[in-house]
This record gives sequence, structure tokens and C-alpha cells, in this order.
Amino acid sequence: KCNPDRLWNSIMEIGQIGHTEVEGSKVGGCHRLALTDKDKQARDLFVGWAKALGCSLRVDAIGNLFLRRNGLDNTLMPVMTGSHLDTQPTGGKFDGVYGCLAGLEALRCLEEKNIQTLRPIEVVVWTNEEGARFKPAMLGSGVYAGVFKLNDVLATKDEAGISLGEELDRLGYKEQTSVDTPECYQYYELHIEQGPVLEALDIDLGIVAGVLGMRWYEVEVTGRSCHAGPSPMNLRNDALVGVAEMISELTKIAANHSHDSRCTIGELNIPNASTNVSAGKVKFSLDLREGRLADLDELQTKAFETIHRIAFHHKLEIGIKETWSLPPCPFDETCLVNIQQACAASYPNLNPHTLISGAGHDAVYVSRVAPTAMIFVPSEDGLSHNEREYTSPEQLEKGCDVLLNTLILSANS
Amino acid sequence: KCNPDRLWNSIMEIGQIGHTEVEGSKVGGCHRLALTDKDKQARDLFVGWAKALGCSLRVDAIGNLFLRRNGLDNTLMPVMTGSHLDTQPTGGKFDGVYGCLAGLEALRCLEEKNIQTLRPIEVVVWTNEEGARFKPAMLGSGVYAGVFKLNDVLATKDEAGISLGEELDRLGYKEQTSVDTPECYQYYELHIEQGPVLEALDIDLGIVAGVLGMRWYEVEVTGRSCHAGPSPMNLRNDALVGVAEMISELTKIAANHSHDSRCTIGELNIPNASTNVSAGKVKFSLDLREGRLADLDELQTKAFETIHRIAFHHKLEIGIKETWSLPPCPFDETCLVNIQQACAASYPNLNPHTLISGAGHDAVYVSRVAPTAMIFVPSEDGLSHNEREYTSPEQLEKGCDVLLNTLILSANS
Ligand SMILES: NC(=O)NCCC(=O)O
Ligand SMILES: NC(=O)NCCC(=O)O
Repeated sequence: KCNPDRLWNSIMEIGQIGHTEVEGSKVGGCHRLALTDKDKQARDLFVGWAKALGCSLRVDAIGNLFLRRNGLDNTLMPVMTGSHLDTQPTGGKFDGVYGCLAGLEALRCLEEKNIQTLRPIEVVVWTNEEGARFKPAMLGSGVYAGVFKLNDVLATKDEAGISLGEELDRLGYKEQTSVDTPECYQYYELHIEQGPVLEALDIDLGIVAGVLGMRWYEVEVTGRSCHAGPSPMNLRNDALVGVAEMISELTKIAANHSHDSRCTIGELNIPNASTNVSAGKVKFSLDLREGRLADLDELQTKAFETIHRIAFHHKLEIGIKETWSLPPCPFDETCLVNIQQACAASYPNLNPHTLISGAGHDAVYVSRVAPTAMIFVPSEDGLSHNEREYTSPEQLEKGCDVLLNTLILSANS
Repeated sequence: KCNPDRLWNSIMEIGQIGHTEVEGSKVGGCHRLALTDKDKQARDLFVGWAKALGCSLRVDAIGNLFLRRNGLDNTLMPVMTGSHLDTQPTGGKFDGVYGCLAGLEALRCLEEKNIQTLRPIEVVVWTNEEGARFKPAMLGSGVYAGVFKLNDVLATKDEAGISLGEELDRLGYKEQTSVDTPECYQYYELHIEQGPVLEALDIDLGIVAGVLGMRWYEVEVTGRSCHAGPSPMNLRNDALVGVAEMISELTKIAANHSHDSRCTIGELNIPNASTNVSAGKVKFSLDLREGRLADLDELQTKAFETIHRIAFHHKLEIGIKETWSLPPCPFDETCLVNIQQACAASYPNLNPHTLISGAGHDAVYVSRVAPTAMIFVPSEDGLSHNEREYTSPEQLEKGCDVLLNTLILSANS
């Protein structure tokens, strides 16, 4: 059993780095974009805690941090757990952070009670999970799993034109010049649900059987800008008016497509916007998700058809670029059974709910190179990527206990 | 009669300052925001040309430039003409610039032919007409006419937080510490139409009887941000989805309200936007125009009702702030007759068309302190606030001839 106060206090302490005050939030939000000074501060604090436990640190060429507690037989592949410390621009204090600190809390318990495991255990902090600063999301775990090429990702730039590689150099979080060949026995990631399912069922633990497939696109719509005054409404060629219709229809399509369909337009920009100029060009991001690959393909087809139909109707030109694509990801059966057993041992009456994650996680990429599964705890009001994100100390405790026992089970097998 | 080559070449020369290259544009566009280094370069060039003619320069406390050619009786109030040298972010080479350079061309002709007028003639360059950098539009003429307080306008900040006053100091275009009490016998402004009316009628000259009433608002829409993955579509509270519906309906209302109705959403921002976060907040600009005050009030009422109805339906909160308001502006009868006579003298067969301007102009504010009217020449494809803005040298010549003869008529009366 973990120490719930220590877990909570550590989450609150690291959450002070980038803390945002917001009305109606129980503990405030967090603004800590990947590889900013604040991200470095959070990493430093975390590494300091782990080293105080006697852990060794390894930093790979993409800035992923591996904190290792040795096992009885260190020639065996380690069991790994972890998540990320970066947040969304208006993020909360739990997304990602909880998984890292619950991993640390697990090591603290083992150390405190002097429990040795057969295999080593590693707690990992993955770089740039959110995809808010550098796109797409999950770049650190993606490079680790060989999905992205190291040099491509190092060259990825943020909005201000600063590359991920420059920032790693600046912050000093780049010890190695290459990325390890993955050697991971099993990977478990504990996370907040970020959705409303567990809360609605009033169940404090979720066993995550897989993750929705998802695709990101950049859409560029070109019309013709004109003066807001002399141009009669019926002679305009306003890109924003077309895009408004697209947003309405695209979100309706997803609402009616399947239970798992998601469509989000999160970013929208009018280059050179001015109050008295109708928009000549609009760029927006499109995020589509679905549970099955065939459904995702169908959702994409419908979305593209809709965009092109509205563009034709409004005499607009369209460019669509896919920037990220992940097929639906089922997790490993053995890992899922381990979580079930650990939960039954810790909380015989908890009756955990098996569900699918709508959010991508580093676990998705890690699952390509090691058996993987995830554990969820509820999110109040289903909120995440929001400064009001909240999970109670009791719920965090349960998730951490299940993780701890899953790690012991796995590390001794 | 003016010298059409000299006029055209001057417009092209000043248009090189901030020139933008763009496909499908005959002469390229212009990016020269108010009180930037480029704006100063254009002012310097213009002032140099006027001084070479023997004009004297006066700069008031808001940076308006008055270039004066003395008359036979300099105790009489001057006749004034002019416009502005600042452009939209993706503007053209004619909007504003034409009015200033046609005024200069008129003085060049008078000088060349050694024609004396009874009254002095002043060519004015008004500061920040476009409202693209500092809001609202027409700040220089507004201060001159006593509509805005000097200190308020000097404190107005651009998006980067730089004040208009700081920029005036930096560029050195602020000789006086106050603004003149307006002493203007009559004011004439020559401008491109920026709309499709004259071109559709195939008439090369417009006499502008007045200007539409216009209002600017900043609308802020607040919902709740959530994660693009785990949040089912029907449980979202996405501010952008509401705003999309507003854009569609608001533009439809204006299309069906009256012949003169205009509704433009030119700027839209999602603070802290991220691809995988549904928008918690959206801000957009709203520009409404109408020919009669009662119609403008009615258009505003319908627009506000629509915004609030959609917000209610989507459970969004609304804030609306009016940032600019101008009632419809009729121009002066005597001035209009002067233009008619000048046109009949220069081009007996031209049959000028009387119309209403959809765009605000410095003439609107000047009309509050002096008898005022405007002259228009056609805009190709009705385009303006667009890099493809174009008017032919022959059309520019006709407008300039009519201005020249109007100024002589007025300055001798
Ligand atoms: N968990 C999380 O916020 N992941 C980011 C990737 C995604 O958009 O699902
Ligand atoms: N002519 C012109 O572009 N004026 C700016 C003010 C307006 O928006 O009408």
C-alpha cells in the first residue's frame, strides 16, 4: 500500500511549477509546455526525488528520463512504468504527472519496506507527450519505439520556430547521442481517465484494454479577402464563412457516426486578420478519432467529402495535410490480467471497469516494442486538458496501490 | 489636367515601400501598417516631394501631416484634400495612397502652370486610417475633428502592447503638442471605391453622397475546454462550435436585411489553442454596417439576439463590447455640387454616378468640422483590402483631373 499523503503532496508540489489560478478549480491548473524552463524545473525536482531513493538516471537522445531501481537479477529486462511531466497550455495538475509520481511512489514504498524485486523497475518520463508545443503528440515515446526518426523529431519546430533539439541542448537534458534499443519486459502506465465514463459508473478504477485510432490534419481554406464595407454580402468569397459551416457539419457527423467517434477543431487561424477585412484564408486543425480502423477510414471519408462539398458551394480552395496517424491500439492480454489480479488483491470489492481510452498515451507507442497495458482513475466531470481537472486523493491512492502491486507481480515474473 | 504618368509613377514608387509580391496581382500588394518604419519611409518620401514644390509642412500632435501651398489671401481658410498612407496587412497600392498622391499631383500641376488660387490649399496625410494596427480606424482625423481625445488615442496600444504615442515619438512625427482647432473651408477626399458598383455600371467616376453607419464589437464566447479524445461529442461545451453557428447565421442575417447591410467577422482567436483541446474560449470581431440609423439599430438587435440564442442553446456565456460606432454620414450639398461642376467641365460625357460609400473614410470625421464630400474611381473586381486591388492609370487620371478642378473651384470661392 502506498503512502497517499506523500503521493498527493508530491503531485501538488510539482504542480506549483507552472501553477495557474483559476476560478472554480479545487487545486488550480498548470501551464508547463514541453522543454520550457518550467518543464526543466519539474524534471529536476523529479530526478532529485528519484536519486534520493538511490535510483540511477539515464537520459536518451530525445530527453526521455529513465530512473532505475535495480532488481535481484539485473541481466533481466526491466519492468517499466511512467508517463509525462509536460502539460497543455491550460492543463491540469494530474494529466501525465500522476503516472510519473505514482511510479515514484511505488519505488518509495519498495525502498521503505525494503522489498527486493527479481527484475529491475524503471520509471520513465517521456518527452513532449502533449503535442501542444511540438507536434504531433507522444514524440519521446514515439522515438523510443522507433516510430519516428530521431533527427526528424529533433528538427521539429514550435510556433516560434525553435526546434526541439535546440531546447534539449539548452536545458541540458540530452545525455546520450542515440536512443536505446528498447529492452522492456512489460510497460504499465497509470493515468487519469480524462473522460466521464468511470465517474458515471461510480467505479474508481479502469483497466484500459486499448486506445482509439486517431488522425490529425491541417486544413487550409482559401477564398478572397475583401473590404468589410463596400462589398455586398452576396458577392463575397469569405473563407471563414465556409469554415464555420465546415465546423458545424464536421462535429455533427462525428456526433452521429458511432459511439466512439470524435471530431475536434482545436486551432483556427486567420493569417493577417483585420476587423474590416473578410477572411481570404483560414487554417484549422482537425482531430478525428474512432474505435475501429474501418470506422476511422469512413469518418475521414465523410469529413473530407463534407469539407470539399462546402468548399465547392462557397467557391473556396482546399488543402488538407495529414500530420499524424495512429491506428486503434489493443493492449496486451497478459498485462491486462496482471492488472486485474493486482486489483483483486488490493481491493477485492472494487469491481474495476474495462474501457477504451479516447486519449493517446505514450503506452500506445511503447506497446509496439513491449507488452503494455494501462490503468485509469476517474476524472471529475470528465474534465481534462482543462485547468479544472481533478481526481480525489482517495482515487489517486487506489490507482497507485494497483500500480504498485502490478509492478511487483510483473517484476517477480 | 494632371500628368497621368507622373501620378502613376509616384503611386508605384511609394508602393515599393512595403511591396508584396502576389500571384494574379497586376502591380503587387502592400503591407505598410500605421507608424511602422515603412510608414515613416512613405511619409518621408511624400514630405520630400511636397517640400520640393515649395510647400510648408505642419505636423500635429497625432502625427497628421499638413502640406500647404499658399493662396493669394492666406488669411482665408484653406481648402483641404488628402487621405492616408497606411495600409492593411494584406492591402493594395491604391487605398488611401491615391488620395494623397492625387492631392500632390494637383499641387504639382498648379505649380507647373503657375496657377495661383485665392485660398491656400492643404494636402493632408491622416494617421492610422485603416485601424488594422491601432483600433479603431480613422484615429488621426478623429482626433483632428475632436471625436477622440488626444491622450486616449496616444495611449491606444497595438497587439504587441506598443502605444501609438510611443511610435510617434520613435518615428519623430510629432512636432506639435496639441491638435489644431480645425480651420478648413471645404474638404474633398478622392479614393478608390473598394467595391463593385462603378465597375458594374461601367462608369469611371463616383460622387459620394455619404457613408454607411458602422459599428465594431469584440465578442467573447466562453464554454469549457475538454480533451479531444475521451470526451463524447454530446457532452462537450465547445465554444468554437457555437461561434461557427453564429458566423453562419450573422452573415445570413446581413445578406437578407437590406441592400446596404454588411456583417463581417474579420478576426477570430482561440486563446491557448491546441489541436487536441476543444475550445474553452473564442474571441471574435464583429463589424456591422447599414445605410440608415434605424436599420443599423435593427441589424444590431438581430445580431445580438442571434448570438445570445445560439449561446443559450450551446450553454455558452457571452460578452459583447462595442469598440467603435459611427452613424450614417451624409456629405455636404455644396461640395457635391462643386464636384459635379468640376466633372462636367473636365469630362462633359462622363455621366458620374452618385453613390454611398460602404467604407469609412477620414472624410467622415472631417465632415463634422468642415463641409465635405468625396470622389470615387472604380476598383477592379470590386476588390480592396486585398493585395490584388487595382485601378487603371486612365481611371486614376480622370479622378485626379476632377479633384484638381474641384480644388480650383473651391479655392477660388
Ligand atoms: N493523454 C493525452 O493527453 N495525450 C495526448 C495525445 C492525444 O491527443 O490523445
Ligand atoms: N477606407 C477604409 O479602408 N477605411 C477603413 C475604415 C472602414 O473599415 O471602413
